[in-house]
Amino acid sequence: MALIVQKYGGTSVRDIDRIRNVALRIAKTRDRGDDVVVVLSAMSGVTDRLLQTAGEITDRPEKRELDVLLATGEQTTVALMAITLSSMGYKARSLLGYQAEILTDGMSTKARIRDIGSGRIRSLLDEGHIVVVAGFQGADSEGNITTLGRGGSDTSAVAIAAAVKADECEIYTDVDGIYTADPNICSKAKKLDRISYDEMLEMASLGAKVLQIRSVEFARKYNVVIHVRSSFNDEKGTIVVHEDSNMEKMIVSGVTHSKDVARITLLKVPDQPGIATGILSPIADAGIQVDIIIQNTRAGNMTDFTFTVPRTDYAAAMEIENKVAKEIGASEVRGDDMVAKISVVGVGMRSHSGVAAKMFAALATENINIRMISTSEIRISCVIEEKYTELAVRTLHTAFGLDDENKTV
Amino acid sequence: MALIVQKYGGTSVRDIDRIRNVALRIAKTRDRGDDVVVVLSAMSGVTDRLLQTAGEITDRPEKRELDVLLATGEQTTVALMAITLSSMGYKARSLLGYQAEILTDGMSTKARIRDIGSGRIRSLLDEGHIVVVAGFQGADSEGNITTLGRGGSDTSAVAIAAAVKADECEIYTDVDGIYTADPNICSKAKKLDRISYDEMLEMASLGAKVLQIRSVEFARKYNVVIHVRSSFNDEKGTIVVHEDSNMEKMIVSGVTHSKDVARITLLKVPDQPGIATGILSPIADAGIQVDIIIQNTRAGNMTDFTFTVPRTDYAAAMEIENKVAKEIGASEVRGDDMVAKISVVGVGMRSHSGVAAKMFAALATENINIRMISTSEIRISCVIEEKYTELAVRTLHTAFGLDDENKTV
Repeated sequence: MALIVQKYGGTSVRDIDRIRNVALRIAKTRDRGDDVVVVLSAMSGVTDRLLQTAGEITDRPEKRELDVLLATGEQTTVALMAITLSSMGYKARSLLGYQAEILTDGMSTKARIRDIGSGRIRSLLDEGHIVVVAGFQGADSEGNITTLGRGGSDTSAVAIAAAVKADECEIYTDVDGIYTADPNICSKAKKLDRISYDEMLEMASLGAKVLQIRSVEFARKYNVVIHVRSSFNDEKGTIVVHEDSNMEKMIVSGVTHSKDVARITLLKVPDQPGIATGILSPIADAGIQVDIIIQNTRAGNMTDFTFTVPRTDYAAAMEIENKVAKEIGASEVRGDDMVAKISVVGVGMRSHSGVAAKMFAALATENINIRMISTSEIRISCVIEEKYTELAVRTLHTAFGLDDENKTV
Repeated sequence: MALIVQKYGGTSVRDIDRIRNVALRIAKTRDRGDDVVVVLSAMSGVTDRLLQTAGEITDRPEKRELDVLLATGEQTTVALMAITLSSMGYKARSLLGYQAEILTDGMSTKARIRDIGSGRIRSLLDEGHIVVVAGFQGADSEGNITTLGRGGSDTSAVAIAAAVKADECEIYTDVDGIYTADPNICSKAKKLDRISYDEMLEMASLGAKVLQIRSVEFARKYNVVIHVRSSFNDEKGTIVVHEDSNMEKMIVSGVTHSKDVARITLLKVPDQPGIATGILSPIADAGIQVDIIIQNTRAGNMTDFTFTVPRTDYAAAMEIENKVAKEIGASEVRGDDMVAKISVVGVGMRSHSGVAAKMFAALATENINIRMISTSEIRISCVIEEKYTELAVRTLHTAFGLDDENKTV
């Protein structure tokens, strides 16, 4: 008998029919003899609708109260699920965030989980209940309702799995698992059976939007085995675990891409201490996240400084840097929002040299010009012209031997 | 500086515009220097919609979970109200039932309030907040969400007013106050300035649906001054308090009527001990509420037994009594669901004789036949043919000197 945490996202519970389907899946797990804790998101569209209603009142709704409002979304789904399971003859009990003892800090709308008490869930399981927990929400030490930010239900599920020491945390979604590349672009993409937390983190932050990054960090920290799988079929999905010997056979696990990128370069910046801070602090102050940063030395005590921001923040960032350039005496600001970022990710890179060279060579074969390069221990990213995105993904997928030979193009 | 509890019903908060109007009214009270605790219902229609959704899953939704679902209704309104008040520059804080320390018994969907802690509300008031409490909901001693049954927000408001020792509990509704009769029937009906708890209880149970009966019982027990008034204007409404000397000038305070009545008579019942139980127990077992009960002695150790039930339960009750009649040897069961109940209510009756005689005489003048009579200390009720309802109300209203002489018919 195992203890399984199952998390279902908004599309899996978007109406009564879908809720019934999910209930059948939960029941099947229960019938197998396993203990089940279910974590649910709000029905798809509900959170957006609530935000819109609050937005009709004011542009800046009070965050504490916004959380009270948003928390009704998950409250509705857990009640409906518990009603459904009960009507099927199962003992089921819903728990809201505070009832499940999910303690967070007090940062409304983007709270972080500090602790989870497992007592209440444990005793309900011992009584034979299926426990249905509202994802995305918790309570701070003063009992105020808090929410965990977009995608927070993944983190709820993993954190609960850690607290109750679950054998597995199944994350049900609308895809079959984690792929070696986006199947919409690369028809030969394969589903991965296993992937390491580190790789998943690099993949998630690079645009594979299956799992919230924080949930993977949590899982890595507390050794929670995540199983990403589809709520529409019974296929095994992808297991996310600590790196193991099986994985090392592959140098590269996947190719990811993101078009949510824009590049900004300040030319001929006087090269003196503190110049990077002078350029990037105003960007941070505006709440804009910087991704890749590159600084090249030029002749004559001058430097060129380049960084990337999300494309939606491009205009604001350009405006800021045009001011900064005058202040610090840079000669010119250049920007480009028609770029994309392509990355290869794999723990195998640690022990294999030549991955970068192979990547650059493959792109060169297709005449794809590399505009920026950035690397981590298990990732190499290149910024290229946006129009080459799909070609680059397919080229690298083939070059690193990831193609599923059973699939035809 | 006073401490005021204000309760607004579903129609007063049914959309963003109405919520804004209510917020302005709350703000006006706050600007006057008063401390304000606001109690809100769900937006009108929301509770019915949630019940309908649960009904799509099963005919008998698990009650604990139904309460979790229903509680989202009030949670939504308090969040939106706190957001609105905050956006207007006021310090406002929403509290859900459990956060407001509303402790109930464990009877899901019809819980009773056991205790209210005033600590949290008090300290928020001391910090200068307008406190916005979700009506209709509380939590049992195990932390499960409970709801108080239809109209429960009135009870929430009165109970909170008792706990925080408020100077007044204002119940905002869509009528101007309590009238001497239904103004839709009796154009000369007057708004009462004051009414006693006892009278209000008789009126409420007789069909004046302004206040939930339980809230009036609560107010009487804890000396909470209720002020029933309209949320659409600034007129004073009706104050509900303990009986005082002012009231005794009037013998009758109001005339009420109810068409939700049906009459059932068992003829020639063998008159022996336990016969009333034999007749009424099966009715109680079927969850049907009996109102008036009359037993007349006949010659020959026989009795006729008559009682009334809500009209919606008439068919079920007749079916039951047809069986009962055979078992106990009654000769016949007669029923009539085309009847109505007319009552005059007033604490002045206690000290004035002749009220009944005057009532019967007034009805006789209009040739209205009385089918049943029932009295309490401060009420006389007659069951009459339904078609005479409106005529009877107007006739009694005039006979007891309640007509507003400033109004023309």
